[in-house]
Amino acid sequence: VSARRARPGEFDLIARYFRPLAKSPDAFRLADDAALLVPPRGRDLVVTADLVAEGVHFFPDDPPDAIARKALRVNLSDLAAKGAEPLGYVVTLALRADWTETWVAGFARGLAGDQKRYRISLLGGDTSRASGGTTISITAFGMLPHGTMVHRWGAKPGDLVYVSGTVGDAALGLQVRLGKLAPNGARHTVGRYLLPEPRVALAKVVRRYATSALDISDGLVGDFAHICKASNVSGQLDAAAVPLSEEARQLVAASPSLIETDLTGGDDYEILSTVSPTSAAAFERAAGRVGVAVTRIGQIKKGSGASKVVDAAGQAVRFARRSFEHFSG
Amino acid sequence: VSARRARPGEFDLIARYFRPLAKSPDAFRLADDAALLVPPRGRDLVVTADLVAEGVHFFPDDPPDAIARKALRVNLSDLAAKGAEPLGYVVTLALRADWTETWVAGFARGLAGDQKRYRISLLGGDTSRASGGTTISITAFGMLPHGTMVHRWGAKPGDLVYVSGTVGDAALGLQVRLGKLAPNGARHTVGRYLLPEPRVALAKVVRRYATSALDISDGLVGDFAHICKASNVSGQLDAAAVPLSEEARQLVAASPSLIETDLTGGDDYEILSTVSPTSAAAFERAAGRVGVAVTRIGQIKKGSGASKVVDAAGQAVRFARRSFEHFSG
Repeated sequence: VSARRARPGEFDLIARYFRPLAKSPDAFRLADDAALLVPPRGRDLVVTADLVAEGVHFFPDDPPDAIARKALRVNLSDLAAKGAEPLGYVVTLALRADWTETWVAGFARGLAGDQKRYRISLLGGDTSRASGGTTISITAFGMLPHGTMVHRWGAKPGDLVYVSGTVGDAALGLQVRLGKLAPNGARHTVGRYLLPEPRVALAKVVRRYATSALDISDGLVGDFAHICKASNVSGQLDAAAVPLSEEARQLVAASPSLIETDLTGGDDYEILSTVSPTSAAAFERAAGRVGVAVTRIGQIKKGSGASKVVDAAGQAVRFARRSFEHFSG
Repeated sequence: VSARRARPGEFDLIARYFRPLAKSPDAFRLADDAALLVPPRGRDLVVTADLVAEGVHFFPDDPPDAIARKALRVNLSDLAAKGAEPLGYVVTLALRADWTETWVAGFARGLAGDQKRYRISLLGGDTSRASGGTTISITAFGMLPHGTMVHRWGAKPGDLVYVSGTVGDAALGLQVRLGKLAPNGARHTVGRYLLPEPRVALAKVVRRYATSALDISDGLVGDFAHICKASNVSGQLDAAAVPLSEEARQLVAASPSLIETDLTGGDDYEILSTVSPTSAAAFERAAGRVGVAVTRIGQIKKGSGASKVVDAAGQAVRFARRSFEHFSG
């Protein structure tokens, strides 16, 4: 009991760990009940919210700074896919009964690191006890020129399909983390499960060239289906063209059935976008200039929402399930 | 197992219960990864976030529509105290393992009712399983003319202190709910604990006349101390002037020590504001025109952040604790 008494109260916790994160003058040092959001003239604000829950999205013994970064980055990833540059965020934190000050300090350190990395500020939030595991909810704000938000819809027949980075690392890393895959040197995939890399630098490229885009959280195959359905077009992904990391390639070479995990497993947080053929070369060059690899992996066709994946021989590939739902997973 | 299998998945849950709440065109029917926030020219956006957790802010068997309304209203109350009219909100919902579709339907019904009442729209969110009790996090957005946000600071020596509505009902209602107070007819106080009444109509009056304001969530005495400290002034509350509901008055008459619970208990969600003496009459008239009772309960004096409560004889009243922290409570 004395150890618990020694923990700081809500006000002290905010003053010690969260106030230093409120760099924006519009956050009022978290000393008010609300913050201001004032977009520069001619800019729209984009808002997105994601929660991460202990035992669902992270393990109780994951490092707290990685949990904080993941909670933030899944939101920044959504903003980037919509073409928006990040501005700030609010966080609500429900802490498990046996939380420690060390855990909160690590959590705040993770946020501080990513605030610098992505040049954003904490704007507000709330802290409370949880009745179960720790739950973190982040609402993030981005900016873009008026009217330029990129949607899931907008893909046109003839458009080419691109994905950033490599696909499936996080899903394979989760299998390693769960002990279902041998961990032989699988540090890259586990790292990608723990800590996604939101493609913030790609936001302005997506905004300029993509006809539709989203970030892959439910798995490449399922999220591609979302684009086709929302755009009311058909689409085809070429499985052999999907970029895999060296580590994922080795894992799939050793167990070919893992390709399903790779393509449907989720939590990639890479940007899937469609680009008109006349813009494709410019899109690839612009992505190169901001340092993000993009790979052409498919094509949009006329149709009414159907999507498929074909192998190197052009045969349709079938999957037991097309996407991952955190909800039931 | 079959009953759980019969529950809708995340996508179905969103389509059935949350999509109908996304009335704003900027919410894109929740069919995109993010929403737009486009303040009309010359308006600032105000943002606030609060979480409510099962077992901390509500009881597992509270009606789900009341839980939803409470989660929303504590945020609308913050906006009103800052002088902002509500615009919309995002909600993240972490559902306990044995959630039912009936519960979610009730929760959405509560949101729908308050959306109509306060003319706001759901803009986005996220749904997931929780590892413990259900946790709801809401980020709400309000609007006000550029530069008119009302802060906790700004109170000046000579200002009069006003509070809306009545004080202490929710704190007394919680005691009844916990079985620590006899429930004899205590329906008003229990109702106020379950469902706060955010003073949305008062936003424009606060914006025009208040030198500082906040909504009382931590208890009148503690929140008044926040204003005095933030404004670097001293302040005095007149306990005998604090407006009590008829029910609270009877409870306190029967057990005089309950006045401490009443004045420090929290969860009032009434607006505490300071107004210059030259504006006081206009403030009172304007509040009357929007149908919200306001009562003068104290005064701001020169000083450096100290605040006190005096009784009818002018003697300082001491409290065991000045405010309620949900964190440790």
